[in-house]
Amino acid sequence: MSVARVTEISSTSEQSFEDAIRRGLERATKTLRGVTSAWIKEQRVALQDGKIKHYQVNMQVTFVLDE
Amino acid sequence: MSVARVTEISSTSEQSFEDAIRRGLERATKTLRGVTSAWIKEQRVALQDGKIKHYQVNMQVTFVLDE
Amino acid sequence: MSVARVTEISSTSEQSFEDAIRRGLERATKTLRGVTSAWIKEQRVALQDGKIKHYQVNMQVTFVLDE
Amino acid sequence: MSVARVTEISSTSEQSFEDAIRRGLERATKTLRGVTSAWIKEQRVALQDGKIKHYQVNMQVTFVLDE
Amino acid sequence: MSVARVTEISSTSEQSFEDAIRRGLERATKTLRGVTSAWIKEQRVALQDGKIKHYQVNMQVTFVLDE
Amino acid sequence: MSVARVTEISSTSEQSFEDAIRRGLERATKTLRGVTSAWIKEQRVALQDGKIKHYQVNMQVTFVLDE
Amino acid sequence: MSVARVTEISSTSEQSFEDAIRRGLERATKTLRGVTSAWIKEQRVALQDGKIKHYQVNMQVTFVLDE
Amino acid sequence: MSVARVTEISSTSEQSFEDAIRRGLERATKTLRGVTSAWIKEQRVALQDGKIKHYQVNMQVTFVLDE
Amino acid sequence: MSVARVTEISSTSEQSFEDAIRRGLERATKTLRGVTSAWIKEQRVALQDGKIKHYQVNMQVTFVLDE
Amino acid sequence: MSVARVTEISSTSEQSFEDAIRRGLERATKTLRGVTSAWIKEQRVALQDGKIKHYQVNMQVTFVLDE
Amino acid sequence: MSVARVTEISSTSEQSFEDAIRRGLERATKTLRGVTSAWIKEQRVALQDGKIKHYQVNMQVTFVLDE
Amino acid sequence: MSVARVTEISSTSEQSFEDAIRRGLERATKTLRGVTSAWIKEQRVALQDGKIKHYQVNMQVTFVLDE
Repeated sequence: MSVARVTEISSTSEQSFEDAIRRGLERATKTLRGVTSAWIKEQRVALQDGKIKHYQVNMQVTFVLDE
Repeated sequence: MSVARVTEISSTSEQSFEDAIRRGLERATKTLRGVTSAWIKEQRVALQDGKIKHYQVNMQVTFVLDE
Repeated sequence: MSVARVTEISSTSEQSFEDAIRRGLERATKTLRGVTSAWIKEQRVALQDGKIKHYQVNMQVTFVLDE
Repeated sequence: MSVARVTEISSTSEQSFEDAIRRGLERATKTLRGVTSAWIKEQRVALQDGKIKHYQVNMQVTFVLDE
Repeated sequence: MSVARVTEISSTSEQSFEDAIRRGLERATKTLRGVTSAWIKEQRVALQDGKIKHYQVNMQVTFVLDE
Repeated sequence: MSVARVTEISSTSEQSFEDAIRRGLERATKTLRGVTSAWIKEQRVALQDGKIKHYQVNMQVTFVLDE
Repeated sequence: MSVARVTEISSTSEQSFEDAIRRGLERATKTLRGVTSAWIKEQRVALQDGKIKHYQVNMQVTFVLDE
Repeated sequence: MSVARVTEISSTSEQSFEDAIRRGLERATKTLRGVTSAWIKEQRVALQDGKIKHYQVNMQVTFVLDE
Repeated sequence: MSVARVTEISSTSEQSFEDAIRRGLERATKTLRGVTSAWIKEQRVALQDGKIKHYQVNMQVTFVLDE
Repeated sequence: MSVARVTEISSTSEQSFEDAIRRGLERATKTLRGVTSAWIKEQRVALQDGKIKHYQVNMQVTFVLDE
Repeated sequence: MSVARVTEISSTSEQSFEDAIRRGLERATKTLRGVTSAWIKEQRVALQDGKIKHYQVNMQVTFVLDE
Repeated sequence: MSVARVTEISSTSEQSFEDAIRRGLERATKTLRGVTSAWIKEQRVALQDGKIKHYQVNMQVTFVLDE
């Protein structure tokens, strides 16, 4: 029996969606132990003056509380 | 690059949906810094004895962790 | 143990969405006893000649049958 | 027989969601003839320094091409 | 007027879905006061070597912050 | 050729989801003839003082009008 | 201001989906006055011994209560 | 590499859904070049005095901008 | 007790959606025994040079494995 | 790196939803090796003469092809 | 107060999804001023003779009309 | 007229989502002829000890049966 929590993280990167995912997960694993998975919920691009400003990813991050 | 969290808040008001939103966001901004947006996820009305008792709003609140 | 029914009501108002909700629930509570809640399912605006004609709300209304 | 188009409009107001709807529809009816309805697709609130900055509504606007 | 938070809990049991729900809620009520409801979002079964290993439930748990 | 209606029933039980389903369907079949199926739409748990108070099931019940 | 109800009808035909719609609406308008629209929610086909047995349509039927 | 746009068309016919689709696409292809597909998003029926008035189809129409 | 499988079939016809359904089901019943139902998941139209090329239907087909 | 397939199974039981799940998975693991999980997609109840006839579960079953 | 429009763009690339996004947004910003964001709605891959032919992205592009 | 089947494939890669897609499609085209497209249904990341373990993609793969 195990109990986990699921929380939503939104992160951005000027490089790519996968860089946004990596940075968001690096930040999440700094404060949360036991992160086991992330489900990509939304992908967006922000633009400014006709150029891509950043890639944004919203993800549902699961981390185990007790095992 | 920035990382934000998204959390769900449910709040009620005897006045209106927008009053419920304002009160929920006032409460959220008391304990969370960097709240940038709220997405209205659900709107409900509770009744008692044939009268509206309160308006309830569930919203997904985004607040920035690092910028 | 309790059993309730859920029925969909659509109501309109020339004033606002909340007025449409109030009028729809007043009508519903005239014929149904035990209405406990309404979930707002859809909000629409009808226009005519470039002006708002009415606000329309569809809501799922729950009323208790036995308690 | 009639043919209509549906287009998505996003509008904001510092006052309320209904003010955002009214302003978005005023803008839409300036350039589009035959607007008959708007379906509210999303409602968001933007915040800055812990205060509501504006209310944002995304709506699907239907306007008749031929009748 | 009241404000509540909604958080997602994922829990597993070797017995049944309802046992997974009970254990997840026991764990949640150990650290959260004012839990009022849980909405079952997803149900999964994990298998190993052709046998059911555990039942997993993801649920959205609401707990009151202020009343 | 046959025509049926679909109506939503919400029922609760202190025992389990399946007990809530059985009780809701017993109540439905007391007043409706020709019930052929129920689709489970939502499952919720209500809590009080950290304990499960009841299991709630919302279901779409189909009953035949003419055959 | 007007108030309407929305109810779900399921009907079948050995001919076609549109015949199922027509028959379901004929049946609905026999007992309900003020039917204004039907939204097609689901379309299914039932088969027996490798042949189409009937076409089934589920539709949300709106009928005006007060105008 | 190619870029296309997707726009929503709503059309009606007193005959059938497929006639509504044909008429909507005839109208769309009069003003848009390079229409490649249409995805049926919604089907509705409008009634008046207990009779079917028209069949309505909403469809997402894709047309190529550059190829 | 029975066990069935559900598989998705996509079929096209130059005639109509219902012809596409019939042809898809004829093909499915050639290789699968015990097909009991098909749920219409998506309907599309393909165009070429401003004319309808074919009607496409995606359907979830259920066939019984053991009874 | 691994590749898996996901297939939909529908199974019924006169006892309970969990018995339907167990029987469906027993049947699936007889012909498929490497079944790792099942996601519960739909739960239905069939009735006859006012009594529950069986519980039906539709589930998406994942089984590994290569690891 | 501001008003924006949201339009759907579909673009393809032989390289990758992000290349498809970049090319679609380059094309969109050639004719639309004030593009602020794009929400990724769908991602598809087209194949030919067992090889990936192109990556396709459908995105909802928002551009400001008045500010 | 053509008939196709749609099946769901889940594949993983330690590199990236697009590598997972490529590997899943390579595997699919080894046993299935006539694969024409894949729709990306879900994207997940698995983590272990605070590091990304693999990227997982679930996709709906369409392959033509008869043409």
